[in-house]
Amino acid sequence: MTDHKEFRDLADPEDVSDAIASLDLTPDSERVPLEDARGRVLAERIDASLDVPGFDRASMDGYAVRARDTFGADETDPAVLDLAGTVHAGEEPGVTVREGEAVEISTGAVMPEGADAVVMVERTERVDRRSTDGASGEPASESGDAVLVRTAVAPGDDVMLAGADVAAGERALGPGTRLTPREIGLLSALGVDSVPVRAKPTVGIVSTGDELVRPGEDLDSDAGRIYDVNSYAVASAVAEAGGEPELYPHVGDDYDEMETVLRRAADECDLVLSSGSTSASAVDVIYRVIEERGELLLHGVSVKPGKPMLVGRLDQSAYVGLPGYPVSALTIFRTFVAPAIRSAAGLPEPATATVEARLATEERYSEGRTRMLPVGLVETGEAASDAGPESDDPLAYVVDKGSGATTSLVAADGVVEVPADTAYLGADEAVEVQLFSPDVRPPTVLGVGEDDPALARLLDRLRRPRYLAVGSRGGLRRLREGVPDFAVVSGVIGDDRDVASEELATYEREWGLVVPAGNPGKIAGLADLVERNLRFVNRGSDSGLRASLDAALGDLAAERAASRRDLTDAVDGFELAANAHESPARKVAAGDADAGLGLRATAEKLGLGFVPVGTERVRVLGNPDRAGKPGVAALRAALDEQLDAVLSELPGFER
Amino acid sequence: MTDHKEFRDLADPEDVSDAIASLDLTPDSERVPLEDARGRVLAERIDASLDVPGFDRASMDGYAVRARDTFGADETDPAVLDLAGTVHAGEEPGVTVREGEAVEISTGAVMPEGADAVVMVERTERVDRRSTDGASGEPASESGDAVLVRTAVAPGDDVMLAGADVAAGERALGPGTRLTPREIGLLSALGVDSVPVRAKPTVGIVSTGDELVRPGEDLDSDAGRIYDVNSYAVASAVAEAGGEPELYPHVGDDYDEMETVLRRAADECDLVLSSGSTSASAVDVIYRVIEERGELLLHGVSVKPGKPMLVGRLDQSAYVGLPGYPVSALTIFRTFVAPAIRSAAGLPEPATATVEARLATEERYSEGRTRMLPVGLVETGEAASDAGPESDDPLAYVVDKGSGATTSLVAADGVVEVPADTAYLGADEAVEVQLFSPDVRPPTVLGVGEDDPALARLLDRLRRPRYLAVGSRGGLRRLREGVPDFAVVSGVIGDDRDVASEELATYEREWGLVVPAGNPGKIAGLADLVERNLRFVNRGSDSGLRASLDAALGDLAAERAASRRDLTDAVDGFELAANAHESPARKVAAGDADAGLGLRATAEKLGLGFVPVGTERVRVLGNPDRAGKPGVAALRAALDEQLDAVLSELPGFER
Repeated sequence: MTDHKEFRDLADPEDVSDAIASLDLTPDSERVPLEDARGRVLAERIDASLDVPGFDRASMDGYAVRARDTFGADETDPAVLDLAGTVHAGEEPGVTVREGEAVEISTGAVMPEGADAVVMVERTERVDRRSTDGASGEPASESGDAVLVRTAVAPGDDVMLAGADVAAGERALGPGTRLTPREIGLLSALGVDSVPVRAKPTVGIVSTGDELVRPGEDLDSDAGRIYDVNSYAVASAVAEAGGEPELYPHVGDDYDEMETVLRRAADECDLVLSSGSTSASAVDVIYRVIEERGELLLHGVSVKPGKPMLVGRLDQSAYVGLPGYPVSALTIFRTFVAPAIRSAAGLPEPATATVEARLATEERYSEGRTRMLPVGLVETGEAASDAGPESDDPLAYVVDKGSGATTSLVAADGVVEVPADTAYLGADEAVEVQLFSPDVRPPTVLGVGEDDPALARLLDRLRRPRYLAVGSRGGLRRLREGVPDFAVVSGVIGDDRDVASEELATYEREWGLVVPAGNPGKIAGLADLVERNLRFVNRGSDSGLRASLDAALGDLAAERAASRRDLTDAVDGFELAANAHESPARKVAAGDADAGLGLRATAEKLGLGFVPVGTERVRVLGNPDRAGKPGVAALRAALDEQLDAVLSELPGFER
Repeated sequence: MTDHKEFRDLADPEDVSDAIASLDLTPDSERVPLEDARGRVLAERIDASLDVPGFDRASMDGYAVRARDTFGADETDPAVLDLAGTVHAGEEPGVTVREGEAVEISTGAVMPEGADAVVMVERTERVDRRSTDGASGEPASESGDAVLVRTAVAPGDDVMLAGADVAAGERALGPGTRLTPREIGLLSALGVDSVPVRAKPTVGIVSTGDELVRPGEDLDSDAGRIYDVNSYAVASAVAEAGGEPELYPHVGDDYDEMETVLRRAADECDLVLSSGSTSASAVDVIYRVIEERGELLLHGVSVKPGKPMLVGRLDQSAYVGLPGYPVSALTIFRTFVAPAIRSAAGLPEPATATVEARLATEERYSEGRTRMLPVGLVETGEAASDAGPESDDPLAYVVDKGSGATTSLVAADGVVEVPADTAYLGADEAVEVQLFSPDVRPPTVLGVGEDDPALARLLDRLRRPRYLAVGSRGGLRRLREGVPDFAVVSGVIGDDRDVASEELATYEREWGLVVPAGNPGKIAGLADLVERNLRFVNRGSDSGLRASLDAALGDLAAERAASRRDLTDAVDGFELAANAHESPARKVAAGDADAGLGLRATAEKLGLGFVPVGTERVRVLGNPDRAGKPGVAALRAALDEQLDAVLSELPGFER
């Protein structure tokens, strides 16, 4: 294990971009049917091979005439022309317009021989020839054989000449043109039904690691198996960048297997992306394959997250090794690889997707690498607008559950690039957030706090909310810092009088011990936990539920004239804090525990037994500075109108 | 024809939006494999069904230890632990860590029983037990049986607890979440291999008009046939908005046929879009079908272009009738229909895609309808920046070849919405341009003027140029107005001394009469046009080539002591001006003319004969205010470096 690469000489980000740009990913062009051409990029210039329109064409419903026959005509003194026939769109005119004649014509129809202008129908009247003798004769039937023309027209009026739109031989679209519905319209007009386009670069994706399992398959967690996150995530990022992803089987750290799969991918693709195993040994093996079968241009980049990165060539293909952690892999992909794929596909870089924001809380850092800090955004709404224009900028809060966490992926909206020499960013400091894509928008409302099933159901009824389940204590702390729009707090979690807030709603939930179905251990209450040898699973100390348990144990201790510590020390597993509100119950369901701290609703949902201990109050606390924010108004409306329905579906919940 | 609808009561745009919103396009949800889920929208909330990670997991390569065994250890006084085994990622640990022991562990591996922390490998040293007796013994082999730990760790250090990322039962993603690579990463981690998503609304597209021909098929222009532009253009716009387009055969104005196709589409789709025939009679037929088989909510909208529009229901489906002209159809689609499709698909409205611009030239209008004015954008570059900040805004020039023209589609970048009561917009007036999509960017360089094959080839070598072939005279006029970055002018087109410009390049091209291959008519020069009964095709008076012809005819007239008018009157077809530079030659090739005004290069390209008359100078004139613009620098470089190569490929072209 000692010869594994430590990436001591980390490349600067610009050098990585240059190295990747030096790899040629550009595939040959291909021809696609017009109906599949949207979003593709023309490989060659397209000239018009025909005139559009292909004939002199009436632009209006009306009468085709010789313009000079209408000279001097007006409302009071119309010209009288003989009707010589009719031409509809899509038919060859079987008629010629002679002096003193008019031909009824539809929009889009071929101008008959002799006519050089169209009089729109609104300026005409159909009459019988005989009735026109008295100059302004009676209006006559539809089938009249003459036309009164009440306006003078000039040659060319309401006629589109052949080739006036596009003439044969004209340059219609240049190479590199991205095909939108508008270009597809023009190509249709030219009769083009297939177009030469830049092919999508094919990108082979090889995840490495013996522990990986494809989603949908069974997972043996005891053997350390995990689902393969990078294959699908990177594949969809490749497709988003305009490449054609190709998934290969994941490989372990066996040299021959690695070499076989990587070289097969190199043979079949323009670019091979591996995502490094979380273990360094696989990286070592890849390293050897690239050095022996290709060329390693650089390894290691001075960016966090993302350090362990490889750039090189493998046989005739380009090669980039991404880090194993999903957050790192996607960050490196987005920063360095996506631009190269877009360039190879002929696609422009997306429109600048940056927003100005203020950092919610201070951030210290001193690792000497460029840092791509993942942040979530929260809009502060109108209430803050009297504090100057820049305070309208959203707040950016750092999202960091560690680079091994996949939830960081979805809790962030973009990244703040912090230069390597910046060790400190203050709260409220102006930062530029690079959104993950131009259509990312901050959530309508940001909540933090207790993980509560009633609240989760209520969130489903809001448009694009975000909720960070950081526990009641964490929620209160963040509300004090002024970050979220609301916090959800349950139980007795200490003094919150210093936190300015407005109670938007409150309800009660019944908590207790979740036990196996039928309560085979005949557990009657907290005393059993203390007195009997039961395996218990607790919640973390940020949780309101845990605070309620602590309080109840305090009462029990007082009853017994013992210290609470005496009691908790006697509970097997008291310090074994589980992450989410269902976790203790699930441990019970799995047979790994005899009792878990939880809610009646959870016990019933999972078909387990429940020993009630008490009820606790859940409070939804609004950030008073955000009262005017539309997302908060929507939350308030949902609480007013839908909370009762939500509570009625959950056993043990009530107002 | 008199009962056709005149759309006298035009609906306000807001009423149209309301009417379309009242139609329910929302399809049922569907389940798609994770690999196809990118861009889709979750139909239901997804809760985690397992813990991620599923086990307590080492976050670093190193040694799994009992933290309390390292207490007090540091660089100078390391703890010495016995090596008890190894755990790799993806395997079940077959070892327990007892007091005083360490187990070698890989990142991602399962923490062995007994261990509660990981010491990263960089803070350890592998030694032989016997060599540690002297406290800081000699470094020993790889295979050493003991580990020096040079730091103290706390319980939990470099361990990610089971469920710390996501815990089973947690709300992972809410309904309405759009799936990007990041959400796909999280779903992969949860082992999810298919997801319930909002189905794409299916949109049936029925073009109407007997004259329509599908691209790729043969076109009989004499019979007034034209290619069907709307089917493919609207279909790709539907796909862009998140719908699933379905093309139906186009239909004429036969009631039974129309009813059959429309009702079939209504049966199979959530929304039926017809695009009205250019003839009013088909609209009348559609009108009757909708009134008899459904419900017409409104007809006619007070928007230009786009007036003839229908909104209603047909059987169980929603129905919208679009205007027939492609520019109108796409404008109405984008304004009213795309938002309804996005909403039905659960997609957000795209990020605001508007830019501030200054109107290039004044615009008058007084039709009392909201106007969607198509405009192209040209950036003015740095040279203009000393004239105040707002002058950095691009210029917006109106693109209007008439609503029947498909080229207007691609020459514009967006639209300016002009309220119904605004009759005048001044030059330089600030306007807001709604881009056709957020990724539309103005061309890098805008040229106008003569339609010239050498220039067209040069444009192919530039990135995203735009060139409007408005003739030499039109080019000079627009350069005088300050709109384009450069103009291309050929021949003798009158006094241009009042136009400030910088000559970027100049070259010569040979022009004359293009005649049938082998010159069967033995045409020797211009005199034959005057003296013999030849059918001639000219170019328009904006063209530099035409100016050269006029000058040559003037010389001939002077020679003969005649007026030029005497000569031109004697040329059959002198006034028959063709649109593009190849058009006269193509008329000759088609047998419709005996001679056409054109270039030697065109004659040779089309395999025709050529009778030389003269050479004319082509000048590329730069707008002096744009000298600093990057696109102009690129043009200049291309002219300097590539023009010679381009000219050498074209017969009759030289410096």
